[in-house]
Amino acid sequence: MPEEKPYDIVVHNGTVLTLNRTFEVLEIGLVCITGGRLERVEKEAPGQALPAARQIIDARGGIIMPGLVNTHTHAPMSLFRGLADDLPLMTWLNDHIFEAEGRWLNPETVYTATRLSCAEMLLSGTTTLCDGYFFEDNVAEAVEESGMRAVLGQGIIDFPAPGVPEPDKNVAEARRFIDKWQGKSPLIRPGLFCHSPYTCSEETLREARRVADETETLFQIHVAETQSEVRELQEKHGLSPVQYLDKIGILNPATLVVHAIWVDEVDIASMAGSLVAISVTTESEMKLASGVPPVPAFLKKGLAVGIGTDGCASNNNLDMFQEMDLVAKLHKVKNLDPTVLDARQVLRLATQGGADALGLGDEIGSLEAGKRADLIIVDTRKPHLTPLYDPASHLVYAAGGSDVRDVIIDGRLVVRDRTVLTIKVEEVMAAVEDLAREIAS
Amino acid sequence: MPEEKPYDIVVHNGTVLTLNRTFEVLEIGLVCITGGRLERVEKEAPGQALPAARQIIDARGGIIMPGLVNTHTHAPMSLFRGLADDLPLMTWLNDHIFEAEGRWLNPETVYTATRLSCAEMLLSGTTTLCDGYFFEDNVAEAVEESGMRAVLGQGIIDFPAPGVPEPDKNVAEARRFIDKWQGKSPLIRPGLFCHSPYTCSEETLREARRVADETETLFQIHVAETQSEVRELQEKHGLSPVQYLDKIGILNPATLVVHAIWVDEVDIASMAGSLVAISVTTESEMKLASGVPPVPAFLKKGLAVGIGTDGCASNNNLDMFQEMDLVAKLHKVKNLDPTVLDARQVLRLATQGGADALGLGDEIGSLEAGKRADLIIVDTRKPHLTPLYDPASHLVYAAGGSDVRDVIIDGRLVVRDRTVLTIKVEEVMAAVEDLAREIAS
Repeated sequence: MPEEKPYDIVVHNGTVLTLNRTFEVLEIGLVCITGGRLERVEKEAPGQALPAARQIIDARGGIIMPGLVNTHTHAPMSLFRGLADDLPLMTWLNDHIFEAEGRWLNPETVYTATRLSCAEMLLSGTTTLCDGYFFEDNVAEAVEESGMRAVLGQGIIDFPAPGVPEPDKNVAEARRFIDKWQGKSPLIRPGLFCHSPYTCSEETLREARRVADETETLFQIHVAETQSEVRELQEKHGLSPVQYLDKIGILNPATLVVHAIWVDEVDIASMAGSLVAISVTTESEMKLASGVPPVPAFLKKGLAVGIGTDGCASNNNLDMFQEMDLVAKLHKVKNLDPTVLDARQVLRLATQGGADALGLGDEIGSLEAGKRADLIIVDTRKPHLTPLYDPASHLVYAAGGSDVRDVIIDGRLVVRDRTVLTIKVEEVMAAVEDLAREIAS
Repeated sequence: MPEEKPYDIVVHNGTVLTLNRTFEVLEIGLVCITGGRLERVEKEAPGQALPAARQIIDARGGIIMPGLVNTHTHAPMSLFRGLADDLPLMTWLNDHIFEAEGRWLNPETVYTATRLSCAEMLLSGTTTLCDGYFFEDNVAEAVEESGMRAVLGQGIIDFPAPGVPEPDKNVAEARRFIDKWQGKSPLIRPGLFCHSPYTCSEETLREARRVADETETLFQIHVAETQSEVRELQEKHGLSPVQYLDKIGILNPATLVVHAIWVDEVDIASMAGSLVAISVTTESEMKLASGVPPVPAFLKKGLAVGIGTDGCASNNNLDMFQEMDLVAKLHKVKNLDPTVLDARQVLRLATQGGADALGLGDEIGSLEAGKRADLIIVDTRKPHLTPLYDPASHLVYAAGGSDVRDVIIDGRLVVRDRTVLTIKVEEVMAAVEDLAREIAS
């Protein structure tokens, strides 16, 4: 008998939520990883010897599940976490956020704050993020070092922006970012992020679309976030934001529409027809009092929907578990129907749904042999997760990011026993505190 | 110079949120405790020697604040956490919860599950709970052992109930409970909990009110939780639930109205006129799709409002930090106004507001010399709480129960470095898991 080649990592002794099409749950399961890929995902037979492996991780009765996919954030905004809250949107943006961004963002602060956000995301079970901001090169550097998987969009807006003082070079700058990062790092996919249909001209939007199509990258855009945006677009173009974008040819399957709160049935039909994906950012949308997107209607139309946290200045954390809990509960109470968005559906949105929304659905989003090995272990031996009747229920309604014990991304162990192995967390926190002292003074 | 008598405990080196009337924040503060009472709450002068104390607790730059007051829960229901979710309310209640309660509740299971809930509450910073359930003697035993402060109501319902098979003895049973526990334990105040105006007859409600008034205890009752309750009361009495209770003399200042979701302006005026207090249970009300109570209107009318978690079967945890976050965000998005319920207001609801609602406002709810010493230390040296511009913002929008490091109740240290000192947590979790295995099979 030939000697068996050892796996890189074997994770065992946990309830495996595969999040595959049939929502298969393996009560005591085993996951074998080699070369960054899931080789085996199966039941662990009692008394069976474990396969040979370089590293064995005992989940100790916890839950083994796909890593969470955060489909919308602005990672460097952790620098401004809690700087200004409870304000009218335009006061918050114009008097606080835009001013702070203009004054404090530079390659170094963006890099440092992104490292902080990566640490937070890893410690709360997020393995993939989709980001859109400025100085995205520096976001990419920090994300690459963290070991996270990411889709990163260089920001495009028709105003002087951090790192892009001349607006007429904004699309060219995004193109440069994409060219630099495409194929450079196995876990990072570059793309672009047009701020919105009210802050980018038709020309900018069309140019950006052309760049995204040519480079086969994701086109992110905030759409229909507020009622005032809808009014503005109606006045300017006689169309809703979605209809306007549809008319000028922006919507296609490589488009991530973020928010989509103030949309009507015609808009939803357009988005479904164009096969765009949608990212909802429930906590931030609630905190800014933007509104509630019609998620059940999106799902009914078959749209790919992912969950995002948005940036830390409007959330104010990056915990996807809290987002799951809120998505489920908000749509129940809005519809006065407790059967809307059940725990399994919500778990899917936060994993496979998000992966699909980012165009990564064949690679990640579920624990199935052949996919890349992005998984987390949730420690359930805690009072607030006791007893355990249904893992899906606990993950959505009772658990929090701090219950995540270990994180593996692309077959690499990046969090072990709540210690981030890829980031010097204490050092990063101290650096951000130093910056914050300057900002506050 | 006479020798200074040492304090029992001195807590120092943290930002003290006093939650006093002016929302005073002591950037580096000092709290001195003796005999269960706050003796001094003041700034810590740099270089100043610490006062003599039997125990010194270094908050290490964290936040020192009043313990959280959970104004509505059913502690033993942690036994059924996640047993049934995402179901229509009546299916959930009739086919799952009532059946499970009838079958599995007994003095021992109630005691064990309450111990679990106390451990969870302590580990998430709750120092006072207001509970309403059956076998409340056993709830009281478990709470007393945990060292928590509590107002406990024996359940009253006009059906055969766990421990009260003969409904016509339900008020007498509550009276017996009150007589047994009144003055027995310094931290426990007994009372009664009428289930609702649709499950208790007018006679029961009037009798219960008389007992509460005679014994000077709190009268808890679920009111206007669902639209169907309002319809039922309208059909039966031609009045809304609040108007009906007002008419039959149930509403007075020693009344805790729980939920108050489907109330109109007349109802709110009645409640304000009667000086009742209100408990809102946001997560549970969202998950059961009951509706959204008009909290800003309650506050405008000067009503005492507290926050509760409700039971674990409909939440599904007991984390008051999550409740604070949700109360703030839900009312912002409902009113499309981000200035509604700011972080400081919400912190007040979860502390002094809750204390006022339970009639304990002179004893607890803020950190002021003379009050009982119920306080928690929140560890902010974590990525998701970095940087720190505004402690109030972090506590409401970014922190979670798992950030609580230490808990002191009535001057007694009950949680130290996230270890519960009063409950054998591993043993209790194992006992509840054993019960859950029976229940699931």
